[in-house]
Amino acid sequence: MAEAPVTFSALDSALLGPLFASEAMRAAFSDQARLAAMIRVEAALARAQARFGLAPQDLAAAIAAIDPDSLDLAALGRDTAVAGVPVIPFVKALRARLPAALEPHLHRGATTQDVADTGLVLQMRAALDLVAADLDAIRASLATLARAHRTTPCVGRTYGQHAAPVTFGYKVAVWWAGIHEVGRRLPDLRGGLSASLGGPVGTLAGLGPDGPAVARAFAEELGLAAAPIAWHARRARIAEIGAFLALLIGALAKMATDVAHLASTEVAELAEPHVPGRGGSSAMPHKRNPVSATVILAAHGAAPGLAATLFAAMAAAHERPAGAWHAEWHALPQLFGLASGALREARALAEGLAVDPQRMRDNLDLTRGLLFADTAAAALAPRLGAAAAHRAVEEAADRVRAEGASLLAVLRERFGDEPALSAAFDLAPAVAAAAAFVDEALACP
Amino acid sequence: MAEAPVTFSALDSALLGPLFASEAMRAAFSDQARLAAMIRVEAALARAQARFGLAPQDLAAAIAAIDPDSLDLAALGRDTAVAGVPVIPFVKALRARLPAALEPHLHRGATTQDVADTGLVLQMRAALDLVAADLDAIRASLATLARAHRTTPCVGRTYGQHAAPVTFGYKVAVWWAGIHEVGRRLPDLRGGLSASLGGPVGTLAGLGPDGPAVARAFAEELGLAAAPIAWHARRARIAEIGAFLALLIGALAKMATDVAHLASTEVAELAEPHVPGRGGSSAMPHKRNPVSATVILAAHGAAPGLAATLFAAMAAAHERPAGAWHAEWHALPQLFGLASGALREARALAEGLAVDPQRMRDNLDLTRGLLFADTAAAALAPRLGAAAAHRAVEEAADRVRAEGASLLAVLRERFGDEPALSAAFDLAPAVAAAAAFVDEALACP
Amino acid sequence: MAEAPVTFSALDSALLGPLFASEAMRAAFSDQARLAAMIRVEAALARAQARFGLAPQDLAAAIAAIDPDSLDLAALGRDTAVAGVPVIPFVKALRARLPAALEPHLHRGATTQDVADTGLVLQMRAALDLVAADLDAIRASLATLARAHRTTPCVGRTYGQHAAPVTFGYKVAVWWAGIHEVGRRLPDLRGGLSASLGGPVGTLAGLGPDGPAVARAFAEELGLAAAPIAWHARRARIAEIGAFLALLIGALAKMATDVAHLASTEVAELAEPHVPGRGGSSAMPHKRNPVSATVILAAHGAAPGLAATLFAAMAAAHERPAGAWHAEWHALPQLFGLASGALREARALAEGLAVDPQRMRDNLDLTRGLLFADTAAAALAPRLGAAAAHRAVEEAADRVRAEGASLLAVLRERFGDEPALSAAFDLAPAVAAAAAFVDEALACP
Amino acid sequence: MAEAPVTFSALDSALLGPLFASEAMRAAFSDQARLAAMIRVEAALARAQARFGLAPQDLAAAIAAIDPDSLDLAALGRDTAVAGVPVIPFVKALRARLPAALEPHLHRGATTQDVADTGLVLQMRAALDLVAADLDAIRASLATLARAHRTTPCVGRTYGQHAAPVTFGYKVAVWWAGIHEVGRRLPDLRGGLSASLGGPVGTLAGLGPDGPAVARAFAEELGLAAAPIAWHARRARIAEIGAFLALLIGALAKMATDVAHLASTEVAELAEPHVPGRGGSSAMPHKRNPVSATVILAAHGAAPGLAATLFAAMAAAHERPAGAWHAEWHALPQLFGLASGALREARALAEGLAVDPQRMRDNLDLTRGLLFADTAAAALAPRLGAAAAHRAVEEAADRVRAEGASLLAVLRERFGDEPALSAAFDLAPAVAAAAAFVDEALACP
Repeated sequence: MAEAPVTFSALDSALLGPLFASEAMRAAFSDQARLAAMIRVEAALARAQARFGLAPQDLAAAIAAIDPDSLDLAALGRDTAVAGVPVIPFVKALRARLPAALEPHLHRGATTQDVADTGLVLQMRAALDLVAADLDAIRASLATLARAHRTTPCVGRTYGQHAAPVTFGYKVAVWWAGIHEVGRRLPDLRGGLSASLGGPVGTLAGLGPDGPAVARAFAEELGLAAAPIAWHARRARIAEIGAFLALLIGALAKMATDVAHLASTEVAELAEPHVPGRGGSSAMPHKRNPVSATVILAAHGAAPGLAATLFAAMAAAHERPAGAWHAEWHALPQLFGLASGALREARALAEGLAVDPQRMRDNLDLTRGLLFADTAAAALAPRLGAAAAHRAVEEAADRVRAEGASLLAVLRERFGDEPALSAAFDLAPAVAAAAAFVDEALACP
Repeated sequence: MAEAPVTFSALDSALLGPLFASEAMRAAFSDQARLAAMIRVEAALARAQARFGLAPQDLAAAIAAIDPDSLDLAALGRDTAVAGVPVIPFVKALRARLPAALEPHLHRGATTQDVADTGLVLQMRAALDLVAADLDAIRASLATLARAHRTTPCVGRTYGQHAAPVTFGYKVAVWWAGIHEVGRRLPDLRGGLSASLGGPVGTLAGLGPDGPAVARAFAEELGLAAAPIAWHARRARIAEIGAFLALLIGALAKMATDVAHLASTEVAELAEPHVPGRGGSSAMPHKRNPVSATVILAAHGAAPGLAATLFAAMAAAHERPAGAWHAEWHALPQLFGLASGALREARALAEGLAVDPQRMRDNLDLTRGLLFADTAAAALAPRLGAAAAHRAVEEAADRVRAEGASLLAVLRERFGDEPALSAAFDLAPAVAAAAAFVDEALACP
Repeated sequence: MAEAPVTFSALDSALLGPLFASEAMRAAFSDQARLAAMIRVEAALARAQARFGLAPQDLAAAIAAIDPDSLDLAALGRDTAVAGVPVIPFVKALRARLPAALEPHLHRGATTQDVADTGLVLQMRAALDLVAADLDAIRASLATLARAHRTTPCVGRTYGQHAAPVTFGYKVAVWWAGIHEVGRRLPDLRGGLSASLGGPVGTLAGLGPDGPAVARAFAEELGLAAAPIAWHARRARIAEIGAFLALLIGALAKMATDVAHLASTEVAELAEPHVPGRGGSSAMPHKRNPVSATVILAAHGAAPGLAATLFAAMAAAHERPAGAWHAEWHALPQLFGLASGALREARALAEGLAVDPQRMRDNLDLTRGLLFADTAAAALAPRLGAAAAHRAVEEAADRVRAEGASLLAVLRERFGDEPALSAAFDLAPAVAAAAAFVDEALACP
Repeated sequence: MAEAPVTFSALDSALLGPLFASEAMRAAFSDQARLAAMIRVEAALARAQARFGLAPQDLAAAIAAIDPDSLDLAALGRDTAVAGVPVIPFVKALRARLPAALEPHLHRGATTQDVADTGLVLQMRAALDLVAADLDAIRASLATLARAHRTTPCVGRTYGQHAAPVTFGYKVAVWWAGIHEVGRRLPDLRGGLSASLGGPVGTLAGLGPDGPAVARAFAEELGLAAAPIAWHARRARIAEIGAFLALLIGALAKMATDVAHLASTEVAELAEPHVPGRGGSSAMPHKRNPVSATVILAAHGAAPGLAATLFAAMAAAHERPAGAWHAEWHALPQLFGLASGALREARALAEGLAVDPQRMRDNLDLTRGLLFADTAAAALAPRLGAAAAHRAVEEAADRVRAEGASLLAVLRERFGDEPALSAAFDLAPAVAAAAAFVDEALACP
């Protein structure tokens, strides 16, 4: 272990990173991936320029043949610390590997930010594809789970208190809908990923009248959208992708919040999928900690602040700002890292949650009928008026809590044994109502 | 001034608020507007339920006839502090104003959050329409300004330093594009505004099998989208609207950052529109402070943190969370307030910026040709190779700075009087390149 | 209700504000309080200058006699929207109320920011005193509660799972310590509150050589610290107070998080103090929502973003920035508002929490001895080695969960009836250990 | 380059990290440093327990002899991803390296979080020492610079506009004071760094009555403070250190904001220290980008969001939360990384800024006397009254701007050639006033 990873971010730690980010995403945001993307950008620029006679035909191939692993990363890092941007030493290193006849044509008309931003866009495209795959799997599994428990009765909880019955499938359908409504934006965001080619001040003046056409060709070579005007200092797309990832993590965190509580000892309606060795404690042999929920909630704890950084960075002065652009580097990739871990764990939950319908049923009975307080009040409303009915049930609920009788018994004692009252304690309507919304939600395009 | 406004937010101050938020937006987020919206929601619910025989036909009209100004706001506030939510005292106050025959049918099957959230959605719809109107005006004025200065030469600046020539119209086109790319999302977000009707736990069980149909009718009555499943604890849409507003303010802040700098004493290429009495100082009689830019940048300073609050609030437990939902109340409306002030000021800038083309021209000459360093290097590259040409111009630039000669003179002294070299100092190609991108950007759909 | 409050912040709403902020704090941050503070600042300046013969002796009294309620707030607001700062119309309005002989001496040598910042400091001092009073009350009540339940056995939970026994007093002592360690900073922060008097660029040049002495006298008149050099663009103190409030709210949120969970239906070890009409639901007659915890957690949801705004605002350009300063107005007072509501509710909890020791005892037994897994493993370690003991108990725990037997029974079956094993299931050592730390914590200065 | 670093954070990249963080800080937050710290923690625990006969005397030495480099980091990472926390595989790996007689005594009574938190505290202590050293150097150099330019006249700027004269030394003294007032908190924070030893639920029950004494001994062994009660779920200290770093970076960002503007082409009063190869552009041979300011401002862009994450994480449920604790890992170390780069660059600026007093003098004359508008108005006030004098100078300023005459000439034309008027245009009082505050500030303890 001659050189241990620097780990200001837990995501980058060899020790902690595998817990919090997926292997594929870790690879997508390695230095190696960054250099490979930057080489690809320079090659695409050469190909685009060759179409217009602005670069030798064989330049692109010569660039593309450079092995990113052959570059001296430590030396590049040292030079970056002096130069202030990585592209200057990078271009110098590339020139040193090109034949003398080709070298002067490298990086023509481009500026540092073109290469850095377009390289990042390529990394983000790969990263969004990883996100999309996990999203699809999660949606599919949650839909299956929601259908399977479409009519499994379960307590609905508000403010942490038992409220009224729902079904477990209904809860899952809400998770599904929350993730789906965020995920639906992904294709647009991926499609909007644009190449950056503007040269020193964004106008590509160095390429003469062919500038806009070269920029389009460059984007085409990389399979990216072409920007209508430089985005060196126009950063909404970057901030929007950050916001998307924060929203996505937020939607997953809603599920994780519910799972962690439903898996808590007293509730015990769910358990995270059993994985040998997972969720233990170095001190307590019996522990089954909800590790998946923990990973998701940790990601959610960190995402809002990172997304806020990207919003703030939009105030980018003139043609390239001193600091605002660089602040993005401290925030954007981490959102992908956090999302990857959260998605992986959410997928594991969606595919393997252990559901205990009996326990759900038992918990419904915990409060001796209080869960039916609103239907009981509705049953009494025709007779008493809504407000008086509400009040009567409130008082009855106090007796239930104090005396341990059931709500139905207390109400019968006072109002007699009406069928409407008994019917108010029937689970079936609540189950049917919940099941109907499962269907509505999953039918959503 | 018996009861002065409480002003934890400067936006709500009678003293400061008019500076930071528009009058129309201030009206849209008053307590009066909130109560009016909540009354409208209860009336729409009554109309929807009447369609299905679930409410008396004349209930809706009776509700709609209640004047929000007739409610005792202070008393409602006191009761809210006890109850924990405003809808309980609100519904009680409404009942007290309804005939005994209608009163029991009010608010049937609904829950507090339905009324509060749907009321907020109505306020947001009005607010988004205000945003849209300002956005349209800003885009139109900026497009006109960009075209007017399509070929007005101007310094391009990176890292705060002179970089290479652009045109002022090009800079404005970048602002336009930045605002446009954010604004383009608005119709979607407005169209996605959904009514909330779920009852206690979101399933509308209290309405029986008609639940989903009543929810659709309710949304229709209000001209809102119907949610496929309750969004009581599914908050992506709320967070997304917050993110949209933060992005919008960010795009305006990019313009304001540039304006503030271009209006600074040494640069002096722009001045904010002259308004008598504006931008003065209580101490310095000569001051012309950039008030519009200040308002926008202050909004941008506060927006990221508020948007982050909304992301964090997405981890909403079960069917209704204790705290996460309420945290939204501390953040979302302020984003509308901040946006309204920023938009108003951006509109004033777009419509009335005083542009000084002569000063722009003078500033281009400040560095005695250094702005053409990259074209000069390009002109020398065929002869020296790119790297050597870059180095030669770097050295010449050092002499320009040290000795006060012009870059062209220094280069001619060393490399002779080549036409290619002189041509590198021609503004025309830079202007043409910038103008081409003005056209590209403004052609954007 | 001719003019309803503007309510971009829920804290400023007549409907919602009373729930989220205390009445006293709402008064401290009203427009009236702001104007009164600004008048006090101008009067103190006059007094300080009179000491040095720089102002007429009777100016201060004439200023102090101006009734803030006599100022036309709406007109001031309109003029502020033009001028860009409130102090210009404010000073003009004051001049109009002063005798001609005194008027020219008003506001001498001062700048807008001196009055605005010092006025805010006076509001903050009053606000910090409100905070201090609530803090003292909370600490006293929590200490009493911790002592009362010093040995009341209670489940310790990690990751939402039962872990090992503690006492309820121990939990309260952790809350106490968390609030205490933040609160301890308050006297320093209050003592560091400094008057701002720098004039246009901070150097008080307009007052000649007496400048620094006048600044000290001005601070003395207000009972504030004198800054060694202008803090117009040196904002650490402002940001630090914001951070303090966010930390304080965070410490209260730890307690609220625990309370909300302990009050949840399945756990039911605590209930919020009973207040008639509190925590009800517009739909569910039986609900007892944890309103106090909700208010605290909502404050905690919003505080981090507001504190972040203050950090960001520290990058204040030159002698006064365009925007960064004003962004503080959008954030700082709200932190006081949020803190006031959170403190009030925390105090109510500390004073009135309903504790159910029997339910705590019952919950300890829920897992049939698993809570003693670590002590059981420790008891077996001498015989088996730590790792094997840990493994053995892990396996036994699986059987407990699967078969419903108690952990002690399962272990006895395998390892025989050793006294050391039985002793591991004794609550007493856990209780004693917890009680010892209650004493340690509360002894903290 | 078989395994390139994972670089979700730019700070962790071999390519970008050297620009944004110092080498020493990168070493302090490497995986190697983390493992070394965790080994040190386990050894200290063994030493403390040996004092009480709770561990064999030779255990500590055996632990301390384990070389962190001998641990298989990749394997530990894989196991951490399963277990959910790094300490479980870490302890297992340590056991495997200990003699059988000692192995069972390792990690006795401790829990994962004790080791992870105390290890982090050790890393933070080393990191704070790095911060302190840089802070001392910066303060010393800035004090020297402020004294050297105590009377160097320079424009004071508010809202980006020329306001009134100050001295460059005065500006530097404001930077100094801003950094100093934050830095003064460091010794307290360092002194408050506490060891964490609580065992499963914080009560150290596993150690019997010696628990508190062992905890004190453990802290003593590490030279740390002992906590009066477990801080597993009491996180103010962690959040406070994050806030301190954000405040520190904010104070540095104030300086960087000023430097970047003063180094801009039109202003040109300062230049960053010349370092060959620094601040160039891959496209523009003449560029001298302010790299130091850029690094600092990028850090400042990211710090507020990270600090906000730590505030949010304070709502830590019960004895150990699922997610809130882990979110800290995503934020806290990065604040040290960002601070280290910002400090290094601020130190370079403080030690090597190139100051151009002649350019400062020239810029003072740019506005033909408008900088003296406030003193001119004061000179006219005795004759005209303050308001009329303010207005007269406002009008004169309009003529200066429109006609190019000097303010003195315009005023003389209207009010005659009074000595008081001429004296108002003397730089000396402004310089003296500024110099006096340099002395006041630097005398601050």
